[in-house]
Order: sequence, then structure tokens, then C-alpha cells
Amino acid sequence: MGEFDLIRRYFTRPDHTAHGVAVGIGDDCAALVPTPGHHWLISSDMLVEGRHFLPTVDPAALGHKALAVNLSDLAACGATPRGFTLALALPRVDEAWLAGFSQGLFALADAHACPLVGGDTTQGPLNICITVFGEAPAGQMLRRNGAKPGDEIWVSGRLGDARLALEAFRGRVSSAGLDVLRPAMERPTPRVALGQALRGIATSSIDISDGLAGDLGHILAASGVGACLDLPALPRSPQLAAQPRAAQIECLLAGGDDYELVFTASPGHALPDVGLPLYRIGVIEPEPGLRVRDEAGQLLPTSWRSFDHFKS
Amino acid sequence: MGEFDLIRRYFTRPDHTAHGVAVGIGDDCAALVPTPGHHWLISSDMLVEGRHFLPTVDPAALGHKALAVNLSDLAACGATPRGFTLALALPRVDEAWLAGFSQGLFALADAHACPLVGGDTTQGPLNICITVFGEAPAGQMLRRNGAKPGDEIWVSGRLGDARLALEAFRGRVSSAGLDVLRPAMERPTPRVALGQALRGIATSSIDISDGLAGDLGHILAASGVGACLDLPALPRSPQLAAQPRAAQIECLLAGGDDYELVFTASPGHALPDVGLPLYRIGVIEPEPGLRVRDEAGQLLPTSWRSFDHFKS
Repeated sequence: MGEFDLIRRYFTRPDHTAHGVAVGIGDDCAALVPTPGHHWLISSDMLVEGRHFLPTVDPAALGHKALAVNLSDLAACGATPRGFTLALALPRVDEAWLAGFSQGLFALADAHACPLVGGDTTQGPLNICITVFGEAPAGQMLRRNGAKPGDEIWVSGRLGDARLALEAFRGRVSSAGLDVLRPAMERPTPRVALGQALRGIATSSIDISDGLAGDLGHILAASGVGACLDLPALPRSPQLAAQPRAAQIECLLAGGDDYELVFTASPGHALPDVGLPLYRIGVIEPEPGLRVRDEAGQLLPTSWRSFDHFKS
Repeated sequence: MGEFDLIRRYFTRPDHTAHGVAVGIGDDCAALVPTPGHHWLISSDMLVEGRHFLPTVDPAALGHKALAVNLSDLAACGATPRGFTLALALPRVDEAWLAGFSQGLFALADAHACPLVGGDTTQGPLNICITVFGEAPAGQMLRRNGAKPGDEIWVSGRLGDARLALEAFRGRVSSAGLDVLRPAMERPTPRVALGQALRGIATSSIDISDGLAGDLGHILAASGVGACLDLPALPRSPQLAAQPRAAQIECLLAGGDDYELVFTASPGHALPDVGLPLYRIGVIEPEPGLRVRDEAGQLLPTSWRSFDHFKS
């Protein structure tokens, strides 16, 4: 199968000229129609085999995750998704893989009315690069730099399950009863509705891709503030709560791939209900740095760093 | 060096919040300010080592070319560049390579006032994915589907030099005197000003990345027409004109990487002067298919197909 047949069979759909898409797949460029008074928000992520996923991963889960991590960046900024491009390097044309990958990809794209509008395919070591586009009213994009001392720190959903599932998969913890956590690792849910609902409410926001400590650290650095987290307040699954304390702390603070949102808001500000639990996990302080208080009110001695693709 | 240091050192610049960039590198998304009444044009290309370039290529030339092939897609659509994202997988942190690559990349970006607004870096087999954004007034994007019988077919610059330089590099033709052609292969010039000047004039347009026959073939298919080309009218360098006739035909019709524009316009329509020679190379006909007439007015017997990343 040639490049053009491959695109036609797996990546061109009847709806590719969706609402707001003036020109979809098949020209040198796609053309989208911006909404007046909005800014155009853009994020790009590259996923590499052996680094971000294993060769054995279910291709449908991979298609889902490749788009989910990008939608999660839009969510963190409060954007409404408008479309995405997919660039794909494949070692060979594997039709079963392509069918699964495109099914997982389009199921999530459809759920967010985010059409595939263009891209590229080529031969090479497996590499998936998605660039996603969204919109937010001018001046209402959620950013990292607005946290102020006294702001409360909130997080959505649960932390650490993706990391715990990975550790079980690696055999470093017992996998008994942990199969239920695999979707957290393989099919994360981007918090798109929450992000949009936080426009005008959150003073800062980021999605948790590299771990709470590291990603909150980006907010602290950009805002020129510090924070104190309340360890027992960090939301965790029963499966994670059943792990040894050190493992819990590691998964909660340094577990990557959560794709929850961590954000700050003025104390007492009413938060939106998008059917997702939100947890107050700490407070912004003037003093730089990240502190974590344990169940007894004592500061934890450890410092955490985020996952770094060139260091770990 | 970690991922964030790498981005700071080589890919963050004082001007990254340029005109029209509300938020540049350093948040989960970049934010650009669309021009009212314009559509947002997008193209994405992925370059893989061993497929699109050799490991020995000058990194500055590679940085130039990675952006040039994307700007060429904007040019083909008549778009004004607005910005781009870069996703980069690197086997290791090679500072000399990064310095050269970013220098070549930014020199071309600056020449087109097209700032780097975001992206991703990770470890993996060398892979460069650029997604570029531009604008055109609503309804004025140049497309592939508007060619009509009787339209004249035009091409900019020269054809086949990049292919001839590649063949010389491969040792398949003598490299004597061909060093002068290397820039055509390594540092192609995207025809951005020409594309914009053709808005409202060209009835169809495409850039020549896979060879004239193949790319013009996309116009013919999308427009539901055919064409006859005039072989002696195809513009060629003295170096190509000195090659055997079969090699000339191959380079002119099936040479990839030219990045010239081929476009159609109503007969006799005045064309813009952007300081670039334009050549009338044939005519659109109602009968499907591509025909080529030689110096004696005879149809060439051969058919050509474009370069296909999964076939050749």
C-alpha cells in the first residue's frame, strides 16, 4: 500500500470537512475558520516507541493516548478543541495496527469534536507527532504564571494510578488487583470540559504529565511563588492507598502520565461542577519552593524532580 | 543537559513573543492572534534520518530545509506565515548539532517573520516534525481543484537541480561542476512571496516536492482535468541541460525536492513580478491524464509517477 492509499483508507473520513473546517485533508494545507474574538491555541507532542510506549501496546490505546496527551495541553489552557494534525513515521505498513490505531484516535477525536485536518506519513522508526489546535476567548487562556500567595491549589480526579500501573507492568510491585488501573496508564482522560469551565476562575493551571511536584513546580517558577501541599489531601485510589507509604508518595508526587489538571484559585472561590471530583491539596505561599506536610503536620524531607526525557 | 535546558539554550529566543504571538514558548499551549476575516492554514511535515536526509548532512542546512518544506506548503496555498512548532526526537544531546540546526532553522524563520511558538523534544531516533501556521483572507486560499481546460500551466524557478545534485552525490552522474547545485538540494527556497502574490490569480497551485509529474497530477485529479506539457519549455539549469536527454527528462518530470510552485491561470492573465522567473510550460485540457510533447511535437511514450515514501 502506498502513502496516499494509506491516508485514504485509515485517515480520511466523510466528516473531515467538519464544522469550522474550510479545507480538510487533501490539499497542501488545511484551512480552519477562527472564531472572532478568540486566540488560537497550539500544542505539539511527539511519542516515540520505547520511550513513551512499549511495542506491545494495544494500537487502539496508543491512538487514544497520542491524542489525549495533546488534548490535555489544550485542557490545561482552557481551550476548546478545533482540530489536529497527525504526522506518523511507520517502520512498515501494518494494516491491523493502522486499523486499531486510527479507531482509538478517532473515537477520542469524535468525543471532543476535534477533527483530523491534515498531516504526514512516512517510513521510519515508529514516531507519532500530533499538533492540536484550540481556541479561547482573547485574554482568557489559562496560564502558569498567575498563582498568588494565598491561592488554594486544586487537583482533579486521582493521582498516581498511571505510575502504579506502570510499576505493576514492570513487575516492581505486585500486579494483583491492579489490572483495574491500566486504563489510567493506557487511556488517560483529558480534562477538556474542566479546563474550559475554569476560564475566569483559575489563576493558573497546568496538566500533570511529568508528576505533580514537577508540573506544579512549573506554575511556581512562572508565578514567582512557592507552595505547601497537604500529603493526606492528595487524592488516591484504594489500590494506591494499599501500597507502602514510600510508594504512595512517589506515585502521588512524581508519578507521570496522570493528565489531571492542577490549578490555583482565590480562596473560597466557587468551582465549576463538570462531574469530576476536585480536591483542595494545598496553598500558594510567598516563599519559593515546594513543601509537603505529612499526616502529622511535619514537612517531608525529600525533594522531587519531574521526569526528564534526557535524564532518566 | 536536560530537556528544559536544551529548549532554553537552543530554541528560546528574546523575540519569541513576536507580533501576533500572545503566548510563546513556556506554557502548555502557545497562543496566536488571528487576523479578522482570515482563515487559518496549517501544514505538517515529518523528516526522518536516512529517508529525507543523510546522517552526514550539515545541521544548519537541515534546520533550513525542515522549515523550508513546510513554508513551501504555505506558499502553495498563498498563505502568509504566522508561526510554527517544532517536535524533535534526538538520539542524544549533541550541542554542536543543535547549535547548527537551530541557526539554520531560525535564519529562515526570521526571513519570513515566522516565529517558533512551541513544540516538544524527546529522546529517540532522529526525527524532525514541524507544523506551520499561516493565514489567507477567507476564500482566497490557493487550492488544487480549480484548474480549468484552457488554463495555462506555469512553474517558478528551475526544475530538477535538487534531483541532479542528489544523483551526483550518490555517484550516479559525474559530480564535475555540480557543486553549484547542492543548495538546490540542501537549502531549497520556499516561494512564499509568489504564493501570496498569486491569490486571486492562480486557479490552482501546488508545490513540487515529489516531482512535477506527480504534483501536477494532484492538481489534475482534484480538478478533474488533464494536461499537456511542453518538454522544451521546462526550465532547467545549464548543468542539467548538459546531461543526457533521458536524465534531463527524469530530473525535470520526476525530480523531487524542487519546492518550486506549479500553478494554473486563465490564458493571458497578467502574472505578478516577485523577482522570480515564471515559465509557461503547458496547458490544461479536458481529457484526463498527463501528456508531454517533445521538441518535435511528439508525445513522449513514458508515464511518470511521484516519489512515494512507502513504495520506492
